Amino acid sequence: MSKKTEDEYTYRGHLWFAMRPGIGLLTEAVAPEFQIAERGWEKKPSFLAYHMFDKAHVVMLTEQGIIPRENGVAILKAFRRMEAEGVIKARERVGGVDHSGEAYLITELGWDIGGRLHIGRSTGDLATVSLHLAQRDYIIETMESLLATRKAMVEFAEKHVETITPMYSPGLTVYGSSYMMQHAQVMTFGYYIMAFVNQLERELRKLEAIYDLVQISPAGAAIGIGTDVQNFSRNRTMELLGFDDIYRNCYDAEKHEWYTLDSFASLLTLSHVISGLFHDLLIYSTSEFNLVEPADRYCGTSSIMPQKKNPTAFRWLSDLTVNVKARMLGADSVDGMHRSWTDVINGLRMIPGIMETLQVNVERNEELAGEFWSGAADLAAAIVRERGLPWRTAHQIVATLVRIAKSEGNRPQDVTGAYLDRAAKEYPDYGEPLGLSTRIIQDSMNPRLMVERRTLVGGPAPVRVREEIAASNRLLQIDGVRIEARRRRLGEAAKKLERAIDALIESG
Amino acid sequence: MSKKTEDEYTYRGHLWFAMRPGIGLLTEAVAPEFQIAERGWEKKPSFLAYHMFDKAHVVMLTEQGIIPRENGVAILKAFRRMEAEGVIKARERVGGVDHSGEAYLITELGWDIGGRLHIGRSTGDLATVSLHLAQRDYIIETMESLLATRKAMVEFAEKHVETITPMYSPGLTVYGSSYMMQHAQVMTFGYYIMAFVNQLERELRKLEAIYDLVQISPAGAAIGIGTDVQNFSRNRTMELLGFDDIYRNCYDAEKHEWYTLDSFASLLTLSHVISGLFHDLLIYSTSEFNLVEPADRYCGTSSIMPQKKNPTAFRWLSDLTVNVKARMLGADSVDGMHRSWTDVINGLRMIPGIMETLQVNVERNEELAGEFWSGAADLAAAIVRERGLPWRTAHQIVATLVRIAKSEGNRPQDVTGAYLDRAAKEYPDYGEPLGLSTRIIQDSMNPRLMVERRTLVGGPAPVRVREEIAASNRLLQIDGVRIEARRRRLGEAAKKLERAIDALIESG
Amino acid sequence: MSKKTEDEYTYRGHLWFAMRPGIGLLTEAVAPEFQIAERGWEKKPSFLAYHMFDKAHVVMLTEQGIIPRENGVAILKAFRRMEAEGVIKARERVGGVDHSGEAYLITELGWDIGGRLHIGRSTGDLATVSLHLAQRDYIIETMESLLATRKAMVEFAEKHVETITPMYSPGLTVYGSSYMMQHAQVMTFGYYIMAFVNQLERELRKLEAIYDLVQISPAGAAIGIGTDVQNFSRNRTMELLGFDDIYRNCYDAEKHEWYTLDSFASLLTLSHVISGLFHDLLIYSTSEFNLVEPADRYCGTSSIMPQKKNPTAFRWLSDLTVNVKARMLGADSVDGMHRSWTDVINGLRMIPGIMETLQVNVERNEELAGEFWSGAADLAAAIVRERGLPWRTAHQIVATLVRIAKSEGNRPQDVTGAYLDRAAKEYPDYGEPLGLSTRIIQDSMNPRLMVERRTLVGGPAPVRVREEIAASNRLLQIDGVRIEARRRRLGEAAKKLERAIDALIESG
Amino acid sequence: MSKKTEDEYTYRGHLWFAMRPGIGLLTEAVAPEFQIAERGWEKKPSFLAYHMFDKAHVVMLTEQGIIPRENGVAILKAFRRMEAEGVIKARERVGGVDHSGEAYLITELGWDIGGRLHIGRSTGDLATVSLHLAQRDYIIETMESLLATRKAMVEFAEKHVETITPMYSPGLTVYGSSYMMQHAQVMTFGYYIMAFVNQLERELRKLEAIYDLVQISPAGAAIGIGTDVQNFSRNRTMELLGFDDIYRNCYDAEKHEWYTLDSFASLLTLSHVISGLFHDLLIYSTSEFNLVEPADRYCGTSSIMPQKKNPTAFRWLSDLTVNVKARMLGADSVDGMHRSWTDVINGLRMIPGIMETLQVNVERNEELAGEFWSGAADLAAAIVRERGLPWRTAHQIVATLVRIAKSEGNRPQDVTGAYLDRAAKEYPDYGEPLGLSTRIIQDSMNPRLMVERRTLVGGPAPVRVREEIAASNRLLQIDGVRIEARRRRLGEAAKKLERAIDALIESG
Repeated sequence: MSKKTEDEYTYRGHLWFAMRPGIGLLTEAVAPEFQIAERGWEKKPSFLAYHMFDKAHVVMLTEQGIIPRENGVAILKAFRRMEAEGVIKARERVGGVDHSGEAYLITELGWDIGGRLHIGRSTGDLATVSLHLAQRDYIIETMESLLATRKAMVEFAEKHVETITPMYSPGLTVYGSSYMMQHAQVMTFGYYIMAFVNQLERELRKLEAIYDLVQISPAGAAIGIGTDVQNFSRNRTMELLGFDDIYRNCYDAEKHEWYTLDSFASLLTLSHVISGLFHDLLIYSTSEFNLVEPADRYCGTSSIMPQKKNPTAFRWLSDLTVNVKARMLGADSVDGMHRSWTDVINGLRMIPGIMETLQVNVERNEELAGEFWSGAADLAAAIVRERGLPWRTAHQIVATLVRIAKSEGNRPQDVTGAYLDRAAKEYPDYGEPLGLSTRIIQDSMNPRLMVERRTLVGGPAPVRVREEIAASNRLLQIDGVRIEARRRRLGEAAKKLERAIDALIESG
Repeated sequence: MSKKTEDEYTYRGHLWFAMRPGIGLLTEAVAPEFQIAERGWEKKPSFLAYHMFDKAHVVMLTEQGIIPRENGVAILKAFRRMEAEGVIKARERVGGVDHSGEAYLITELGWDIGGRLHIGRSTGDLATVSLHLAQRDYIIETMESLLATRKAMVEFAEKHVETITPMYSPGLTVYGSSYMMQHAQVMTFGYYIMAFVNQLERELRKLEAIYDLVQISPAGAAIGIGTDVQNFSRNRTMELLGFDDIYRNCYDAEKHEWYTLDSFASLLTLSHVISGLFHDLLIYSTSEFNLVEPADRYCGTSSIMPQKKNPTAFRWLSDLTVNVKARMLGADSVDGMHRSWTDVINGLRMIPGIMETLQVNVERNEELAGEFWSGAADLAAAIVRERGLPWRTAHQIVATLVRIAKSEGNRPQDVTGAYLDRAAKEYPDYGEPLGLSTRIIQDSMNPRLMVERRTLVGGPAPVRVREEIAASNRLLQIDGVRIEARRRRLGEAAKKLERAIDALIESG
Repeated sequence: MSKKTEDEYTYRGHLWFAMRPGIGLLTEAVAPEFQIAERGWEKKPSFLAYHMFDKAHVVMLTEQGIIPRENGVAILKAFRRMEAEGVIKARERVGGVDHSGEAYLITELGWDIGGRLHIGRSTGDLATVSLHLAQRDYIIETMESLLATRKAMVEFAEKHVETITPMYSPGLTVYGSSYMMQHAQVMTFGYYIMAFVNQLERELRKLEAIYDLVQISPAGAAIGIGTDVQNFSRNRTMELLGFDDIYRNCYDAEKHEWYTLDSFASLLTLSHVISGLFHDLLIYSTSEFNLVEPADRYCGTSSIMPQKKNPTAFRWLSDLTVNVKARMLGADSVDGMHRSWTDVINGLRMIPGIMETLQVNVERNEELAGEFWSGAADLAAAIVRERGLPWRTAHQIVATLVRIAKSEGNRPQDVTGAYLDRAAKEYPDYGEPLGLSTRIIQDSMNPRLMVERRTLVGGPAPVRVREEIAASNRLLQIDGVRIEARRRRLGEAAKKLERAIDALIESG
Repeated sequence: MSKKTEDEYTYRGHLWFAMRPGIGLLTEAVAPEFQIAERGWEKKPSFLAYHMFDKAHVVMLTEQGIIPRENGVAILKAFRRMEAEGVIKARERVGGVDHSGEAYLITELGWDIGGRLHIGRSTGDLATVSLHLAQRDYIIETMESLLATRKAMVEFAEKHVETITPMYSPGLTVYGSSYMMQHAQVMTFGYYIMAFVNQLERELRKLEAIYDLVQISPAGAAIGIGTDVQNFSRNRTMELLGFDDIYRNCYDAEKHEWYTLDSFASLLTLSHVISGLFHDLLIYSTSEFNLVEPADRYCGTSSIMPQKKNPTAFRWLSDLTVNVKARMLGADSVDGMHRSWTDVINGLRMIPGIMETLQVNVERNEELAGEFWSGAADLAAAIVRERGLPWRTAHQIVATLVRIAKSEGNRPQDVTGAYLDRAAKEYPDYGEPLGLSTRIIQDSMNPRLMVERRTLVGGPAPVRVREEIAASNRLLQIDGVRIEARRRRLGEAAKKLERAIDALIESG
């Protein structure tokens, strides 16, 4: 537990200058045991966001004549001094948490000037404005990291367009229903990765949608009905903070919990895609599967077992989505939202390096792909094609074949025309030899040919996947331009705010 | 527990025709105790969705020459007979669950024709296609109900643009952090409701976004790499099912769990808005608050307490979002998704009637609004305006005033200029009389004037709220047209499918 | 959705005889759209529990003279007729849900007699009494199934006391943090299973503790303060229902949600043990691990892939605990509690059969155990023992050895004294040859010897494990006797109730 | 984010002395971006627990001759120096996290002595032993705080045995299903609080049960099969750490996640009781209910609304259980377990002060109790008693009465014999006057008489509640003695460990 003294908490906590015991409303200081309890739930204050809002608010108040020009100028100069000291350091020094701006001004300039800051807004504004600013930063950072991740994955996929790999099913599910990881069919490693790329492309669309939802300004909504202070301009503050729109109902603006849920709605699916991939890779990197091996830098070892190379980064990434869900359920969903975005961004920043250094054991992949009857469905399809049988009949003949072969210790490579005929004769609803050549049988179950035959839209044939990679590369270009444009607009708004401050200071 | 016999389960369950013990792969029937266990988790099969997919698939197979034309025609005719019997009834009769189409055809037409249905697709297709069809139906029904709900809420708001009501804070939160419900300021009931209308307007935008995500066809992705059957057309099936696009990677298409999460991401925020409103109304309808009263038809009573009128529908609606979250966490998120959409749609269908019959106790609302010092912040603002004091000084003088008044049993109505001066003198950082007139003091704290003064953008002044109501009415028109257009396109696709069937039957 | 008509719901739902529109308190019938919404959340009524409570309540009322003896006798005779018809069928027929007893009596005997049943109790009593009865049934059934499961697992362990198997780490975790499944050391399959047996032994202790918590009678607590009806005896009802104690505060008794949480607290850990085991077995049964194979009767297959043998029962069992947690979070935790107990009991009933038929691939287990350097820690221990080096030095020399060997494609079997010396010389903090014999090195890493050397308390040496198996067999005997005693006491209470009814009917 | 340099992380993290890049197994340092990501999930290390285990382990190793006596003595002396410096400070200084003991010894005494510490145990032991030690501390602190809480609540209840208060229903539920808070019947405030006391009495029993589960020693289980080091004594370490028993299967001992779930199972119900009470009090302290008022020291105020007195401590306590559940679902349930125990203990430490200073508005409580027809059920009971009517008939007559009275604006106090007769005549299944005296009617609905009449077991009559208070006081005595005994045993074990260290140092 923190070692701060009780005094510090009593006098320097949230809104301390309005909670002096016996002055104003309350007659007692906060109970020490309650202070101790609350510490555990203390959020890291969003000092930079409070600072930006404080500045924009004061510019507006001064421009609109709500506070005397000389007071406004004095405040803005003080904020410049605070920036020289370091915003976080200075605000921590004076206490007050979300109200650290007012605490600083009262400390530095006295009650008569410092006490003028907060007119026309509330603690609620501080919470909602800082939440909106924080979320837009998280989202844009996520977009940028996501782009780098997609790029690295597409490059990886390109290298493995021809790498045959098993396809397991029923598919993976991270949370909830567990793996079966049974051999189903075959694909290429590049194709497999492109499935995740396509998912991440859709995730970017969703991030853009929620970016627009946080780009609406709650500033000036106060605690839910705004203020009756004359000349107060919510539009001017919106502009100085770089928002694109304004809430048309202050009570709506104050219901900020909804907007952390918008973040979670996005984190829910995005983290699921990431964790889904690394849940697979965790299994793929066991000695038994041995399909891939992570670079040492993403691994840990053991204090007693000298041979242990634990793929801890894969585990960290595969746990992401579980934590996002748990945090969404806590009473303090704001804190959970901060942690979740941070984790997702940190996770995305790891992936390019992981993909670049990931060793794919190409031969092992191809060997496993051919070993466990993954071509059985294609053999059934060959029977349909060659003999015109109904699908179900062909399917059941091959099922019978697999049962016989396994019981006799035979492998797919051992199946001849005659061996298949034994199964066809045993199967009660057919009962005759099929007379297929061993060549047709073996071709149908050949992993590489299976992949190459699948030239249908969305299929794993290299020719198809290369087209999709080209499409994904084009989309990377387009999305890059869109994200940069958003970044630029935020930069311009920040400059506009500083210029407005300069203008006031100079004119004052 | 269900009373079905074990026999029924053994022989008629999912894929029974491919799981006959000793025929094909498996040598044993499913263990009876496992059948019993699974029953608890049985999902209601999406028979109508399977049926639509079965038909579109057969049309495509026949048109493309993948199955003999006479077989295709026989199958389509059989499906028409199934429709005459009733799709759900007929499919339940033959068992097979998701494979009830094949089960029906084998039962009615024999293995030789019935066994041809499933070529080129998998159980995976059945799951993903039916999930996509189900979700698009849910979403469009939700959109329609949401429109009706918004309409009823706007009409209600219009009636209560002038109804003064308390504003409580710190706001409500449904799940997680609890109510405080302390008197903060005042607003109107119409303004309060419009905050929820604005939220629901944004929810519609999100629903449109996920509608687009489910309008992508997974059909023909088979179990993750599509098929190698020649001439197979995923595009034709997409068209016949009314989808707008096609997954460009079959493995991506198969990872269907992502797409139930997209539903949950939407349900998460939408259900939260609904439950947030009714969590409030549940408290508002206690005898102590007595702000509103629901119509009897939304209430229950007690087996022993003759006076009890329990607002059970409010409770049901306020629980919605909790259930959505819990279901998202279960292993079977598909089942949870079905239940959650159903609940949300049912909930939305209740709201128009509730709003129409909700009795607002207008006098009680206004009385409570004025009773608990909700005008104190406006009194502080008046002191700033009249005497040029810093906000914080004025705020602390009024805090002192409230403390004195409460300890002496005085109410807001009792505050005179002289009484305020006592507080100003007691407050250590000021210490002088303010000399405000009683008129100014009383006007500042008058609930109706508080509301009327707030003409800022987003404020509760009736003149402002009427503008927002007009804007919301225009948006209702626009959204109505958009939803109808989506409905129409689905209707047209359904007709196209039937015409394609007609054409084949006639030509066959 | 259910196909019941609205009429049925309007007139036959919960407490219909006290909710006739316009008669009594409420002037309207329940809104049809609310009825539809509620259907989705309908719980399966606990008719047999209501019935038992109804009978005990009437016996007490009659014995205490609270209702006229002739009325009491008429009611008890009617209940006997109901039993002849079938309790569930009769109660469904008359509607009323939890009040189906009163509904039946009013229907059969008229208002004048039927209307006397409910005196001195409430809907609350019906809920809490039936919850207590249901939970004690679930718990005792769980205990019995758990005993059978432990027995089957101990028998299985006995067969595999000598079966060498890999030990993977960092351990498994079902929900939340994922598998790593890296080779750590070696153990026997019997020892592994006994770890789960020990856990289940502790689970039984917890079940006994919560059994005692549900064996407290809430009957007569009414809605929270009991009744003022004279001569009312909560003690007599307690006795007739077979409870062991009585709540000493009726308001406490009414807060039933706590008691479903007691169930969940138990289900939380018990389901986790079960799912933990089967999460392992799911991985163990992949083709890559191939350590075990389930019997066909616990598996499914595929509609297109003839080779697929999906271990669906393992998956079902490994999902158990996820569902328990999700249900605990829903608004209707009572419903979730019913489902969770049912699943856990069904799951436990499956396990004996699974263990009996589970095929362990003994050779494959032993082969994997020796393959991936699982003896490296024991080689380090041998160096400490033979050369007196610090543990950390020995550990790092072996780490260096493994790195060199892997890079050169050597396996544990290839390590000679000279090869180890290369590593010792390369390791910078030692730098000299160790001079160990190849024999010592190979013995240290021999999987069977590794196991046999571990004769410490809790170790995997067969001699130790056989002792623990004997201890677990003794505990099975003891626990069996304890469970039977509880069953017997419930049976005796049931007989006492019937005898009391007989006595009244005969005397009446 | 932390400002530690990358160097610090690279070289001082968990197990740094076994992860030097290029020395031993791994060739690379941990990737910087992975280090950054992991920081967010860093747990506060349990340095004091590691320290206690390190000491006990070395004593055992030395006594058993596993490490040379002079090395053991040197290590124990170094640990004494570490204690002089401060255990946490010294361990933070040397890095190594859970392995900070070895890191310290290597730093202070060199590899040759320091490298001997870890023989025969693993990181797994460090995790499970420290988890067991932490949990037993948490549990015993919880027991002590719980005792103080119960004491304060019983004292509070004693003061309010006669304070009439409304009883609301259907009951409260913290998480999930929401409040209805409709007037049901009446009780006393003391009786109400005693219901929670009874619940907490049962919670202590559960805490004792899980205390026994964590008092089993996992020390020496290593990573799941123990060690093959000769003379190693798990029993001696158990004894020195003050455990009561030992895991009989090392693999069982290593599966520590189960044991955090045992903590959660207990926290789940305990936190629910606490939050349940404060969820009520949060509503009770609204201006509308106004039944209670917390002391200022448990409240906050507002930056703009001078009148705001927010009961923030009640809110904190009512959120407890929500956070416990959310944390149980995260991937890192160990971290969540630490936070949850800390919160529960902090919460319990607040309650005595809250109860002592809680102001109950006695008149307001009694006034509300009589106002909203809470006596209606007793009026029905009076009709049954006086006129021999069936309960249901009486119940419906009174329901009719309430409907008429409400529509005519009459209150319970206004009901006369004649007025009741109007209802009786209107009720279609009766239709005659009842002829009850106004005196009987008014007595039946008198809140104080309602309470006094309820002398049944578990009823709210003061005479009954005083008996229960006496019983709860006796139990406080008994439980106090039991908790002290546990504390004493832990103290004695700690002394035994120090004496064993002394003996070795002296003999060395």
